[in-house]
Amino acid sequence: MAAEMVNPRSDSTSGSIGGGEGAGGVTDGEPFDPAFALHRGGKMAVQATVPVRDRDDLSLAYTPGVAKVCSAIAEQPELVHDYTWKSQVVAVVTDGSAVLGLGDIGPEASLPVMEGKAILFKQFGGVDAVPIALECRDVDDIVETVARLAPSFGGVNLEDISAPRCFEIERRLQERVDIPIFHDDQHGTAVVTLAALRNAARLTDRALGQLRAVISGAGAAGVAIARILTEAGIGDVAVCDRKGVVSPEREDLTDVKRELAGFTNKAGLTGSLEGALDGADVFIGVSGGTVPEAAVAKMAPGAFIFAMANPNPEIHPEVAQQYASVVATGRSDFPNQINNVLAFPGIFAGALQVRASRITEGMKLAAAEALAAVVADELSADKVIPSPFDERVAPAVTAAVAAAARAEGVARR
Amino acid sequence: MAAEMVNPRSDSTSGSIGGGEGAGGVTDGEPFDPAFALHRGGKMAVQATVPVRDRDDLSLAYTPGVAKVCSAIAEQPELVHDYTWKSQVVAVVTDGSAVLGLGDIGPEASLPVMEGKAILFKQFGGVDAVPIALECRDVDDIVETVARLAPSFGGVNLEDISAPRCFEIERRLQERVDIPIFHDDQHGTAVVTLAALRNAARLTDRALGQLRAVISGAGAAGVAIARILTEAGIGDVAVCDRKGVVSPEREDLTDVKRELAGFTNKAGLTGSLEGALDGADVFIGVSGGTVPEAAVAKMAPGAFIFAMANPNPEIHPEVAQQYASVVATGRSDFPNQINNVLAFPGIFAGALQVRASRITEGMKLAAAEALAAVVADELSADKVIPSPFDERVAPAVTAAVAAAARAEGVARR
Repeated sequence: MAAEMVNPRSDSTSGSIGGGEGAGGVTDGEPFDPAFALHRGGKMAVQATVPVRDRDDLSLAYTPGVAKVCSAIAEQPELVHDYTWKSQVVAVVTDGSAVLGLGDIGPEASLPVMEGKAILFKQFGGVDAVPIALECRDVDDIVETVARLAPSFGGVNLEDISAPRCFEIERRLQERVDIPIFHDDQHGTAVVTLAALRNAARLTDRALGQLRAVISGAGAAGVAIARILTEAGIGDVAVCDRKGVVSPEREDLTDVKRELAGFTNKAGLTGSLEGALDGADVFIGVSGGTVPEAAVAKMAPGAFIFAMANPNPEIHPEVAQQYASVVATGRSDFPNQINNVLAFPGIFAGALQVRASRITEGMKLAAAEALAAVVADELSADKVIPSPFDERVAPAVTAAVAAAARAEGVARR
Repeated sequence: MAAEMVNPRSDSTSGSIGGGEGAGGVTDGEPFDPAFALHRGGKMAVQATVPVRDRDDLSLAYTPGVAKVCSAIAEQPELVHDYTWKSQVVAVVTDGSAVLGLGDIGPEASLPVMEGKAILFKQFGGVDAVPIALECRDVDDIVETVARLAPSFGGVNLEDISAPRCFEIERRLQERVDIPIFHDDQHGTAVVTLAALRNAARLTDRALGQLRAVISGAGAAGVAIARILTEAGIGDVAVCDRKGVVSPEREDLTDVKRELAGFTNKAGLTGSLEGALDGADVFIGVSGGTVPEAAVAKMAPGAFIFAMANPNPEIHPEVAQQYASVVATGRSDFPNQINNVLAFPGIFAGALQVRASRITEGMKLAAAEALAAVVADELSADKVIPSPFDERVAPAVTAAVAAAARAEGVARR
């Protein structure tokens, strides 16, 4: 089910991956299809959490009683966190430009995914979430619109917004508002990937500092994974796009890739992905492309291969198995599924719990540590990451993120 | 409880009415106040309406199953109404500029009212609603922002936006989007007032065409009531603001009041409210001001007095009783409470049921007819309008509004 929960979802260059699935969806669109039956009428609803049965109830929940609460908030703005649902509700915001593997399908067509995300927030993190699919594409317009919505929400989960716009939108929005802005396609994927890598290293008695990693894909997830691995102290990491290793002498780099070139690839690699994999310890695929067996065969002994493209991993797990000590994918039908649902519900639950003003790098690293720790005593080559349904996950991530928020001074209680 | 559900809520000139209540709220803001206790943590939550227990559930509700639904909507946009919650969810949008009687308290402080409105939508109309308090005031900005949100919602209930901006925002938004835009402080109040007036006329064997009405208050509700009474065929209606009767020769009229002067006051009255009441059949107070007993005493025999200001009616109901055949207020502790909750849940439920693209005058008139009809066989001077808790109301209004939408050609199914 993680199929589209990893990078391809937000990497517009990977629209081809899920395209088949999308096209299939249309042809499969018969009324008897169970997915259509389940979606009829939508997947969520709002409910009152206070009684509204009689005049007395309404005189407290609505007028005249509510006026006292409004006045108190007007006098002490921070009370909005105590007396409304602001601190427990997240806006799941998209423009529909990079949905699943389907690519740019627009706001209405993206709503089923946003509703799905919203119910995952509730189910796994106890966080209320509201799908907001925007009828605008311009970066300035999206930033301005979401900033205007901020008073009503405790946080914003940006979803399925195409790269490179997603980077600027997240950065500028976080500068504008005092609630967490989190692009899950970047950071959720990065947190879960780091957790899996930590446990793979733990399992094979290696330190991150000893590892050289190669990332295939320089979209939202590829960039975020490169950043978090660098912060976590990876020995070296090279990022490859369609043209090969992202390196300073390339003339064709976007601003974001130029920045990447600045802090990755200490080894000064150039050229192809295949070349970069020669002797590498870690392969992380978030490209939607494929990698030849011959290239994987040249990786260092005991390599880690995270082939996360969906529905088709960059290399088949059973083939990868022959050359690696640990193999992970984005799929639920193979071991070690890298699934964002392991991260975003607890990350927001923790941030909201302490009314964090933002989600810092330290909070993301803490989330990865806590996620890895859940199965640290149960490690095996087939279990470097917990199952999405492991009930220990969300509480562990929530507590770690809340503590990190306090430690980093972004908590407001 | 209807206290602020009528005009004063959106008439910024009436901030004084509820002001005392608001100020009281602040001084009463002790933790033991039941209103604060009830509001802790907010009044609403989101829930999943489909199972999310295991991989199979998620593979239908989220990826990969959801991709088929997204693709189908991308191919046939109208399917968004079938396979998401769009057609059952309304955005309750405010800028916090005219909240209850409290006036301009800003977006955060207005959230408890918007949450209250949202749970009333659910409780009385079965309609899901999401509070959206906007951090912007400019008319262009509000119109643009709400238009960008439109793909995610089946309708927009504008709430507590100060006059005269509320008129332009509603008009321009409805021109921009294909979902209903409804400013409840105007139209909800007008629909319920017309219903009560119809039954008062029925009770006393008079036709609307025989009646001359005087409205005190030219804010959102006063303007909307004047419009709907005119459409319903009232004999004559004069609207008074602080300076007296709104009439063409006045130099101080806003655009909206100038428009009012064009279609009201056939009698050509000028001067004071008191003068206008001389011989009038109907008094409708939505001003927050007061009216002297002497003026009411000069009304025609068997007058109708709707003194809807809150918490203090323009004239005390027991005093009004001496000069009127029917007396109504906005309060729950007197007979004939004019309460918007009798209208907006059913109006939106009916509009959403047939996927109406707008809420027409005909739909509002049909709502008033249906609301009046609920108690048509039980009429008395103390019962010209149903109780807010009369369970016959919402279904009757819903059915009438849906039928009217079809008749007027704005229904999409």
